[in-house]
Amino acid sequence: MFEVIEIKSKEKSEMIDIMDSIRKIVDKSGIHHGIIVIYVPHSTAAVTVNKNYDPVVQQDIINRMNELVPKDGHYQHIEGNSAAHIKSSIFGSSVTLILSNGHIELGMFQSVFFCEFDGPRKRKYFVKIIEG
Amino acid sequence: MFEVIEIKSKEKSEMIDIMDSIRKIVDKSGIHHGIIVIYVPHSTAAVTVNKNYDPVVQQDIINRMNELVPKDGHYQHIEGNSAAHIKSSIFGSSVTLILSNGHIELGMFQSVFFCEFDGPRKRKYFVKIIEG
Amino acid sequence: MFEVIEIKSKEKSEMIDIMDSIRKIVDKSGIHHGIIVIYVPHSTAAVTVNKNYDPVVQQDIINRMNELVPKDGHYQHIEGNSAAHIKSSIFGSSVTLILSNGHIELGMFQSVFFCEFDGPRKRKYFVKIIEG
Repeated sequence: MFEVIEIKSKEKSEMIDIMDSIRKIVDKSGIHHGIIVIYVPHSTAAVTVNKNYDPVVQQDIINRMNELVPKDGHYQHIEGNSAAHIKSSIFGSSVTLILSNGHIELGMFQSVFFCEFDGPRKRKYFVKIIEG
Repeated sequence: MFEVIEIKSKEKSEMIDIMDSIRKIVDKSGIHHGIIVIYVPHSTAAVTVNKNYDPVVQQDIINRMNELVPKDGHYQHIEGNSAAHIKSSIFGSSVTLILSNGHIELGMFQSVFFCEFDGPRKRKYFVKIIEG
Repeated sequence: MFEVIEIKSKEKSEMIDIMDSIRKIVDKSGIHHGIIVIYVPHSTAAVTVNKNYDPVVQQDIINRMNELVPKDGHYQHIEGNSAAHIKSSIFGSSVTLILSNGHIELGMFQSVFFCEFDGPRKRKYFVKIIEG
C-alpha cells in the first residue's frame, strides 16, 4: 500500500494537519496491524507529530524555529532558502506510526503535520503501510 | 508484536534509558530479524538514541536544549509548555532500530532514551516489532 | 536484507552523500516494495535527508548547527564532544525511505547523508530492507 498525496501550502512557514488523509488511506488499505511511514520528498519541508488541539502551539513551534534558524542568516546558498533546508533536517523527512487492530496508535491530541518551511507551494507526501 | 509500557518521570526534563525493557520485549517476541519501532504518544516528550555510558552527556543534552528552547520564551500557548512541544518535534516521536539474528544492532554505548520535557508525569511508550 | 557499510569521514563536521551505496544494496536485494531503514550506530554522528544538488547547502547546514550547538559550550562531559552528541539527537540516528516498484521514492534532488559531527573517524552505517 503506497499512496502519493498532493497538498498546497498557503504560508511561508506552516504546519498542516494531514491526519484525516492518513486515516482514510489506512481504512482503504484494510490492513489492521503494522506500521505507517509518512515521507516528505522535499528538502525545504518536513513532517512531524505534535499537538492538534490548540493551533497556537503550532504557531509557537514555527516562531521559535524561525528564531533559531532565521531566514536571513549567514548563508551561502544563492536560492535564499537555506533556513528551510536546515529546519527540514532538524524535524526530519519521515515519521513512523504504529497500527494495531485497525487503529493508529497516537496520543489523545496528537496529529501528523506536514511542515512547510519555504512556501507557499504545491507539495506532496507519501504514505506507505507495512503489514506485520 | 505490540506492547504498551508505562513509565514515570521524576524531573521537569529528563532522559530515561529504556533499553532493558525494549530488549525484554524483543526476547519475548521470539522474532530474530526485522525492525523495532519505539513510539511516544505524548507531544511534550520524545524518544532518542544517544550515549548511555556517562550520565553527564544526558545532562549536557538537556541543558543545551533548555538554552535553545527556553521554558519562558515568547510563547502564546496558555498551558505554559510550548518549549516542551518544540523540543518534542526537534527530537521526534519515534526511533527505529534494526534487529538481526535476534540481536538489536546498536552502537557499543548506545541506548534508547525516553525524553521527558514537561514532567514529572506518568507516561507511556509503545514498542512494535515488524518481522522481515 | 541487512548490510553493514564502512565509511571514513575526513572533517570534524561533514555531510557525506551515501545514496549510491544504498541504491546498490537495494538493487542487490531484488526487493521491489517495502521500506529501507538507514541506521547510524554512533552517538556523535547522525543521518539525514537533504538536498544533494548544491554542496553549499550542506555547508550552510553544518555552519548553522555549529552556531546553535557550539563545540565549546558549557558542557560537563570530559571527552569534549558533547556538541556532537547533542547534534546527533537533533538530527536523529535513522531515516526511513519508501521502496516502490524497485524505485526509492525520493524527491528530485534528495539524498541520504551520513552526518559526521566528531570526525575525522572510521564509521559505519546499517541498511535494512523490510519487504511489504
